Amino acid sequence: MSTNFRPSGRAADALRPVVISRHFTRHAEGSVLIEFGDTRVICTASIENKVPGFLKGKGQGWLTAEYGMLPRSTHTRMDREAAKGKQSGRTQEIQRLIGRSLRAAFDLEAFGERTLHIDCDVIQADGGTRTAAISGAMVAAYDALSTLVAQGLLPAVPLKHFVAAISVGVYRGIPVLDLDYPEDSDCDTDMNVVMTDAGSFIEVQGTAEGAAFDRQTMNTLLELAESGISDLIALQKQVLGLLGA
Amino acid sequence: MSTNFRPSGRAADALRPVVISRHFTRHAEGSVLIEFGDTRVICTASIENKVPGFLKGKGQGWLTAEYGMLPRSTHTRMDREAAKGKQSGRTQEIQRLIGRSLRAAFDLEAFGERTLHIDCDVIQADGGTRTAAISGAMVAAYDALSTLVAQGLLPAVPLKHFVAAISVGVYRGIPVLDLDYPEDSDCDTDMNVVMTDAGSFIEVQGTAEGAAFDRQTMNTLLELAESGISDLIALQKQVLGLLGA
Amino acid sequence: MSTNFRPSGRAADALRPVVISRHFTRHAEGSVLIEFGDTRVICTASIENKVPGFLKGKGQGWLTAEYGMLPRSTHTRMDREAAKGKQSGRTQEIQRLIGRSLRAAFDLEAFGERTLHIDCDVIQADGGTRTAAISGAMVAAYDALSTLVAQGLLPAVPLKHFVAAISVGVYRGIPVLDLDYPEDSDCDTDMNVVMTDAGSFIEVQGTAEGAAFDRQTMNTLLELAESGISDLIALQKQVLGLLGA
Amino acid sequence: MSTNFRPSGRAADALRPVVISRHFTRHAEGSVLIEFGDTRVICTASIENKVPGFLKGKGQGWLTAEYGMLPRSTHTRMDREAAKGKQSGRTQEIQRLIGRSLRAAFDLEAFGERTLHIDCDVIQADGGTRTAAISGAMVAAYDALSTLVAQGLLPAVPLKHFVAAISVGVYRGIPVLDLDYPEDSDCDTDMNVVMTDAGSFIEVQGTAEGAAFDRQTMNTLLELAESGISDLIALQKQVLGLLGA
Amino acid sequence: MSTNFRPSGRAADALRPVVISRHFTRHAEGSVLIEFGDTRVICTASIENKVPGFLKGKGQGWLTAEYGMLPRSTHTRMDREAAKGKQSGRTQEIQRLIGRSLRAAFDLEAFGERTLHIDCDVIQADGGTRTAAISGAMVAAYDALSTLVAQGLLPAVPLKHFVAAISVGVYRGIPVLDLDYPEDSDCDTDMNVVMTDAGSFIEVQGTAEGAAFDRQTMNTLLELAESGISDLIALQKQVLGLLGA
Amino acid sequence: MSTNFRPSGRAADALRPVVISRHFTRHAEGSVLIEFGDTRVICTASIENKVPGFLKGKGQGWLTAEYGMLPRSTHTRMDREAAKGKQSGRTQEIQRLIGRSLRAAFDLEAFGERTLHIDCDVIQADGGTRTAAISGAMVAAYDALSTLVAQGLLPAVPLKHFVAAISVGVYRGIPVLDLDYPEDSDCDTDMNVVMTDAGSFIEVQGTAEGAAFDRQTMNTLLELAESGISDLIALQKQVLGLLGA
Repeated sequence: MSTNFRPSGRAADALRPVVISRHFTRHAEGSVLIEFGDTRVICTASIENKVPGFLKGKGQGWLTAEYGMLPRSTHTRMDREAAKGKQSGRTQEIQRLIGRSLRAAFDLEAFGERTLHIDCDVIQADGGTRTAAISGAMVAAYDALSTLVAQGLLPAVPLKHFVAAISVGVYRGIPVLDLDYPEDSDCDTDMNVVMTDAGSFIEVQGTAEGAAFDRQTMNTLLELAESGISDLIALQKQVLGLLGA
Repeated sequence: MSTNFRPSGRAADALRPVVISRHFTRHAEGSVLIEFGDTRVICTASIENKVPGFLKGKGQGWLTAEYGMLPRSTHTRMDREAAKGKQSGRTQEIQRLIGRSLRAAFDLEAFGERTLHIDCDVIQADGGTRTAAISGAMVAAYDALSTLVAQGLLPAVPLKHFVAAISVGVYRGIPVLDLDYPEDSDCDTDMNVVMTDAGSFIEVQGTAEGAAFDRQTMNTLLELAESGISDLIALQKQVLGLLGA
Repeated sequence: MSTNFRPSGRAADALRPVVISRHFTRHAEGSVLIEFGDTRVICTASIENKVPGFLKGKGQGWLTAEYGMLPRSTHTRMDREAAKGKQSGRTQEIQRLIGRSLRAAFDLEAFGERTLHIDCDVIQADGGTRTAAISGAMVAAYDALSTLVAQGLLPAVPLKHFVAAISVGVYRGIPVLDLDYPEDSDCDTDMNVVMTDAGSFIEVQGTAEGAAFDRQTMNTLLELAESGISDLIALQKQVLGLLGA
Repeated sequence: MSTNFRPSGRAADALRPVVISRHFTRHAEGSVLIEFGDTRVICTASIENKVPGFLKGKGQGWLTAEYGMLPRSTHTRMDREAAKGKQSGRTQEIQRLIGRSLRAAFDLEAFGERTLHIDCDVIQADGGTRTAAISGAMVAAYDALSTLVAQGLLPAVPLKHFVAAISVGVYRGIPVLDLDYPEDSDCDTDMNVVMTDAGSFIEVQGTAEGAAFDRQTMNTLLELAESGISDLIALQKQVLGLLGA
Repeated sequence: MSTNFRPSGRAADALRPVVISRHFTRHAEGSVLIEFGDTRVICTASIENKVPGFLKGKGQGWLTAEYGMLPRSTHTRMDREAAKGKQSGRTQEIQRLIGRSLRAAFDLEAFGERTLHIDCDVIQADGGTRTAAISGAMVAAYDALSTLVAQGLLPAVPLKHFVAAISVGVYRGIPVLDLDYPEDSDCDTDMNVVMTDAGSFIEVQGTAEGAAFDRQTMNTLLELAESGISDLIALQKQVLGLLGA
Repeated sequence: MSTNFRPSGRAADALRPVVISRHFTRHAEGSVLIEFGDTRVICTASIENKVPGFLKGKGQGWLTAEYGMLPRSTHTRMDREAAKGKQSGRTQEIQRLIGRSLRAAFDLEAFGERTLHIDCDVIQADGGTRTAAISGAMVAAYDALSTLVAQGLLPAVPLKHFVAAISVGVYRGIPVLDLDYPEDSDCDTDMNVVMTDAGSFIEVQGTAEGAAFDRQTMNTLLELAESGISDLIALQKQVLGLLGA
């Protein structure tokens, strides 16, 4: 497979350089800057000592996520959602995805009556912001829960499994891993995949934006995703110092 | 496989009885009542002779979709979105899915400067409302475009391919087709699939609500979906009188 | 009086065919489809076991109503109020009218601390939707309260009197009963009347849209309304099986 | 009929003292303070040299009305609607009534492409604010249109007929004219009537808040309204210096 | 300094005629109409026997302010904020300023668990509405708190110091006191100053709308403000009958 | 003056370490990260080739500013304004201040029909975010306008004067420069000052949060501000490479 058909010159199965920086801001219990090439997302995890009404008195916790983009994180300035007075459908769709994905990573029943608020704010966008947000928020959430362990409030981080996410797609007819913006805006199929460190699926969201795609293509895409996510989870564990654990 | 583990007694690969009634209301250019067992959705398609701003003067058309539920379409009354002053994230997610799915069915460039407005309103919910909405809206849209052909405004219905949608999931550990509400509220994995009459995918949205799912399960789910959608598209063509075409 | 001056050919004092179908949807405690010719409205009544804040602890109940139209219930598609983020003044005016009318039908002090939510959703509009909504909601509310009697939670339906509503107006100079859309959009005066089975008034809302009307005309309109409402209440009682009671 | 059963000691058919002060504020083309006893409403009429979209290019004008209450115009402070971010259903109902009533007073086709904006703001409320608003706005609108005549932009005030409004109701079983707040909050039936100087009806809005009312009562109420409105229109003409005309 | 350069012919250091009328409306515990020439603002103070959530159980009170303009208080009609569904940034800025200024005047800890709601509504605007609002609200608040003293609920008005406000600015290069609208819309610098009867500052908000201003100019402006505010506080005390105290 | 009374150990007249990093994100025409100690604000300047409606066809440009805080930029997580559906009064007040300050820095008439959008987003807050935003936005705006010069679209950056801003206040009775969060939340007086490189004032906004302040204190505060702003403008020019110019 030619390495030159992608605008970035990457191989079809190559991730962009991924950097995860912990403790990026100082107030949040967990704060991560995650970079996928030029995509940069601040992911914070904040602990609140109460739960939403529908969980009150049930002795368990909750995790919820919000997502935003700075107005000029994109090529053309977008209107600020706070000024427009509403979040777009796309924003709500993404923050629901992040929330579901992270709730699958942890055992909420072991949180105590606490809510973990995940905030993912894109400061620079170059494709793949939602999957970067999930992959970074995993580390921020782990850090936040670790502060509860350090304070003796939890016996251990209530982890079910690590999760990470990546996009795959069909660009110029060829399945590729980790689409950047030039690919994303010109691809036939775009699929976001969230998986666990056991190799199982949490979410698969595939959309044919141009031609419909067949089973064979889907299989190839899922294999690319599996390989990329495996690398991402290794990186998450490494930055958390858990690789030897 | 036991036929008795599903609350409805259906076989794992059995659809509920599906009924598509055309010309359900009289003002819309296309109007369909679609029923999947106890799920009942009114799908209308309305033609407007203009396009959104971003398409003005480009000589092509547009298709957009909205979705709603009557407050007491559900077991417990929901707040009315119009009274709350905003559509929920779920509503927006669903109407975006319906819109993308139907845009894939038609050649928008052959519409002329017209917008096809799809409205899907659930009057009774028993699981699978979004996939019923897509499958019914396909017929309503076809009827609406046919009125333009009848008036000599279009040479033919600008069809790319028929699309239909179905949900599949893992209920009590077993992959099943067309989840109803008792199954949907108690399943591990829920997947909505939109396909064409050529057997290709338009959308795949799978979510592990309980345990993550593996590749083998995913394959079985996709096969169930393929079989169900094939039956649905045959029904769509039949009610439109296109089966012999 | 010529029977041919009305677009429908009806006599000036003739109602359209009215059909009231109970148990139209299955989740609501009361659910009615009411049809006045081509006007079709789904009326549901839902019981909630609490009351608004201003009634808490007073040992009495409440009844409130909401009204909506499906976007393509009308000749030209209307914007969806949930998408616009607010209900129009017309919608609010109508749902306040429905609520006041139904509260006059029942003894709220005998409800216990319960709220009866009335939802009237127009699926096809051809004039007279608000009066159809009131007349149908009366039956749905009666059915809902009957479920409380059946469960032994109330000794009897806390009925004060049956209420029904009809529109009357001046069309081409002649007072007529039950205006349909072609008449309504071209009339001089439009009056909505809500009455009890004892022949007393609950609401009279008359508007001169063209020429102002005099006392003589008003008297004729009220007589037409009285006659129509008497027939509607007989029908309500008949479908509820209360005629012999 | 005893003159002492009303809290104010007024006779059943007596208006409160009514004062109409023109030129109350200086920027508006028409500005009136109207007082019905302790009810005080500022009514302004503003001319704008354009019409709403649906009338553009039709060579006619429009009249629209808005209504508000200062937060502490009432016994207990109400929330400010601007701060809550929405107008109540009551507010919208009232401003629609004012607009319809005033549109009936003038020949909008003779306005030219202009909009007359009526603003009615209650600074002190003691019952009957909506009818005071209509009666005062009539004078403000007349003044505003007179400025166009004075500037030679219109040949004459495009008047169809004077309109005024009053409330009537059943208090302690007795029909009375012009309810004040103590009566309004404790009455069985409340009816707002808008009439022309020719004695015809523009609007009749009667509501049984307690017991339903019969035809005989309605007739008495309409007669009280007729008499009160006749006096109000005489006062409007007098303050405008039109009595001898 | 020429007395003729100001449109009004006032001397540079002259206030407009100021009139403070107490008991302007009858429901509010304190109600004042304040006039600065053609600027007229209704200021009411309402007592509520509870505090916002963040103060519950702390045994102290609160004071909060809201501000509005009638749509035609201005030369050109403004949109009604309640109809637009939001308050402008200017409105929020002003009401925050009024609230801070009045909270500085009173000892909130001595209020008991009560909230004083200040409402300032401009009925006619000719410049300086926010400073008129503060100066008038001071008197309304004093009156409202006096009612608590009269009822024996407070031992004395919990006054820290009288406050009043005035605008100063640079008009045609010359510092002037109390800008009216023709000056305000054509000035280089506009400064709003709030001071106590002890001559100390509560708020200074200066903005260079044209040329930046230097320290010397600022000093002159502050001296003008000091002199004007001293006169205003004397007037406040006089209308409250406190001058001899 | 003791250097130890400030929580940070800074001298009363000492700024925190200030760092201005240009080209912080890559899409905006101007993008700056400004840090005042632990306060970190991303300031971007975006060029749009059109102007708001009120300036259309006047041949001049416009500059507007928006401000936001990431939800966990603060000690305790704040609600996201986009999710709440409105910007707070504080946010609006701040973005109006930033806009006015930057409009004073440039000659908008020389922009051509372009709008410069300033976005200031706080990623970490430790006091002084609004003044940091102004000081950083000055550099971002200069960079953005320089790209127009580089493209030959403008002959030179249309600069009137450099502006910078700083807060000053009275902490424990002593006037200090550049309050950080521990000081800001516990001070008597807080003043934000915006000045030009010529030493003139653009904005002065002083608020007595505790005790009112006298003229002597105000003078000291303004001198502290003058000194701090002079240093900040030197830094702005240095990072822009304009110091030798």
